Amino acid sequence: MAAKSLTNRAWRLKRYPTGLPTVDDFEIFAAEPPAAALSAGEVLLRTAYISVDPYMRTRMKAGAGYLMDGFELGGKPIDGFCVAKVEQIAGAGASAGEGGLAVGDYVHGFLPWRELNVASAAAVSRIDGALGAADAAADGAAAATADPISPSAYLGVLGLTGLSAYFPALEIGQPQPGETAFVSAAAGAVGSIAGQVFKQMGCEVYGSAGTAEKLAALRDELGFDGALNYKVGAAELDAQLGALCPKGIDVYFDNVGGVMLDTVLKHMNTNGRIICCGAISQYSNADDEAAYGVKNLFMVVAKQLTMRGFLLHRWQDRHAEGRAQLAQWLREGKLAHKETIVDGFDSVAEAMVSLLNGGNTGKLVVRVEQQQE
Amino acid sequence: MAAKSLTNRAWRLKRYPTGLPTVDDFEIFAAEPPAAALSAGEVLLRTAYISVDPYMRTRMKAGAGYLMDGFELGGKPIDGFCVAKVEQIAGAGASAGEGGLAVGDYVHGFLPWRELNVASAAAVSRIDGALGAADAAADGAAAATADPISPSAYLGVLGLTGLSAYFPALEIGQPQPGETAFVSAAAGAVGSIAGQVFKQMGCEVYGSAGTAEKLAALRDELGFDGALNYKVGAAELDAQLGALCPKGIDVYFDNVGGVMLDTVLKHMNTNGRIICCGAISQYSNADDEAAYGVKNLFMVVAKQLTMRGFLLHRWQDRHAEGRAQLAQWLREGKLAHKETIVDGFDSVAEAMVSLLNGGNTGKLVVRVEQQQE
Repeated sequence: MAAKSLTNRAWRLKRYPTGLPTVDDFEIFAAEPPAAALSAGEVLLRTAYISVDPYMRTRMKAGAGYLMDGFELGGKPIDGFCVAKVEQIAGAGASAGEGGLAVGDYVHGFLPWRELNVASAAAVSRIDGALGAADAAADGAAAATADPISPSAYLGVLGLTGLSAYFPALEIGQPQPGETAFVSAAAGAVGSIAGQVFKQMGCEVYGSAGTAEKLAALRDELGFDGALNYKVGAAELDAQLGALCPKGIDVYFDNVGGVMLDTVLKHMNTNGRIICCGAISQYSNADDEAAYGVKNLFMVVAKQLTMRGFLLHRWQDRHAEGRAQLAQWLREGKLAHKETIVDGFDSVAEAMVSLLNGGNTGKLVVRVEQQQE
Repeated sequence: MAAKSLTNRAWRLKRYPTGLPTVDDFEIFAAEPPAAALSAGEVLLRTAYISVDPYMRTRMKAGAGYLMDGFELGGKPIDGFCVAKVEQIAGAGASAGEGGLAVGDYVHGFLPWRELNVASAAAVSRIDGALGAADAAADGAAAATADPISPSAYLGVLGLTGLSAYFPALEIGQPQPGETAFVSAAAGAVGSIAGQVFKQMGCEVYGSAGTAEKLAALRDELGFDGALNYKVGAAELDAQLGALCPKGIDVYFDNVGGVMLDTVLKHMNTNGRIICCGAISQYSNADDEAAYGVKNLFMVVAKQLTMRGFLLHRWQDRHAEGRAQLAQWLREGKLAHKETIVDGFDSVAEAMVSLLNGGNTGKLVVRVEQQQE
């Protein structure tokens, strides 16, 4: 085993970024080590994987955000979705009760970006062996990405990103066989799953991304029928979208807002559905005035479109159902689980910046746990 | 009786307007008089009321529009919703069969803006005595506007404008008792009905309009709980809307698009619904580039909003049900039927221009039939 760090390191925000964040907007600091003794119901968790997600950019502002309040400056660690390993359970030698936790289990939950955390056992969820993940990782090594279901999958395809694609794609999108679906930020964590869900429903699926490598991944690895690079200017984007989807678009899974949304509006078919998942193109604007103005909203009237936003907790009572379906597709080889893994706790800020710069394909995860040599 | 005109006058478009239309964009001309003999199934109709509607601005452009193609220049008459009186039926002395037409009946339908039209009897609908209109107008005089159900009502509250308010207000809006509803262009034909439908559903109802007279009408005649003048600039509009609707807005009936939509988006409550009925603020833009860009669409994600557009034929099989409910509310005095009547076939262009300039309250109708002296 590589040496474990002696301090309990953590990441916090140093200042609110203007525009795209840089690594200098974050800082690593030595947090208090956990107390020697746990209270009843508590577990000691060692962070194994950290998820960096686009919505987090909306918390890098003072005050109340749309999902949660802004991160503190120079104070508490940033928090987000993580996978951790149970290192200790309250009550020496406690053995897990039914459905309880055992030392060595992987759990997923919303945790501070800190190497060690003490949490209530009730606040985290055991990664379910029935879905294959616990088995694959039983020896404590990080599951190879070749394995369809690794613990990190609980931050991606089987986590909130996968479910953020699955439920709205089906429930808002109402995709019908033979329809045309379009996904923006299609090579991203949510987009890559959304496109594949549409494909499972029998749609023709197209997407946009920002690099040649991502476009190739969409076509060759993720089963998209075609893809375009959105970095071409509005007029050319319009022309290319028309050429890519000559029958028009019935379902649009919008992760980006802005120019892309405005352009897609012109290509929507009558009774089309637009799933408003995010607006990553707008998150890093310096202020509200810098927001892009969408001009083609009259298409919502003229084409009788439905645009609907969602937050994931809308389908909270169905998460298990969604995870089970996605896991089944994974095992059947119908769903590619594309991950970009960045190693090391030190790399978290860099990963966050890279994400918002569009540097990754699939789910971007920071692997914190030590690899066996 | 006043003398009838000797020629069969008609209105057509002379040129495509730039920005807001002026009366000079239209011209009156002498159309062919109807043939002396009708073919089987035809009726001769004398136009009684002509409806001017905001959507018609979208047809004052070359090529295909969102609903229908653009009007011809210097060619065929403009066509739109009209009420007419049956003057002659094919087959001399024909008496109406069951459900058929009789001389003297009022009908409504989509007809050329022309004093006399020959139409297929199947293409028009008899104004149903069961709803009270035929009775009220049985003596051939124009019903007084004091009467709740006049033939002109079939261009307004009981016509496509009323139904364009009724179904989307209920089906897209899903108004719940105690919720806050907001209506833009609330003093207009569709808006004034939409607001009253929300009121019937137990909502608090607020609206916007552009003159002090209209604001007074909203509060004093149409039962709105409050109203604001939208002609105050974006920042002030934002402040006033917040003061008018401190609990936020659950249902927004959008007739105008543009700045108002952008501002309302900021005040929508979680899970709010936006009924995208029209965008009258945008219809007269010189070109697409002049369209207002809506910046606050991210609220659709953050507040989990639904925005949905519609064309009326979505509920075509339920029009009778809608008309019956609206007629019942009219008779019970629960629905004010606000009309602005302009007299004379010569006034049609002026009325159209006035409508797009926001000059009227309620449904704007041109009364063509001669008043008894």
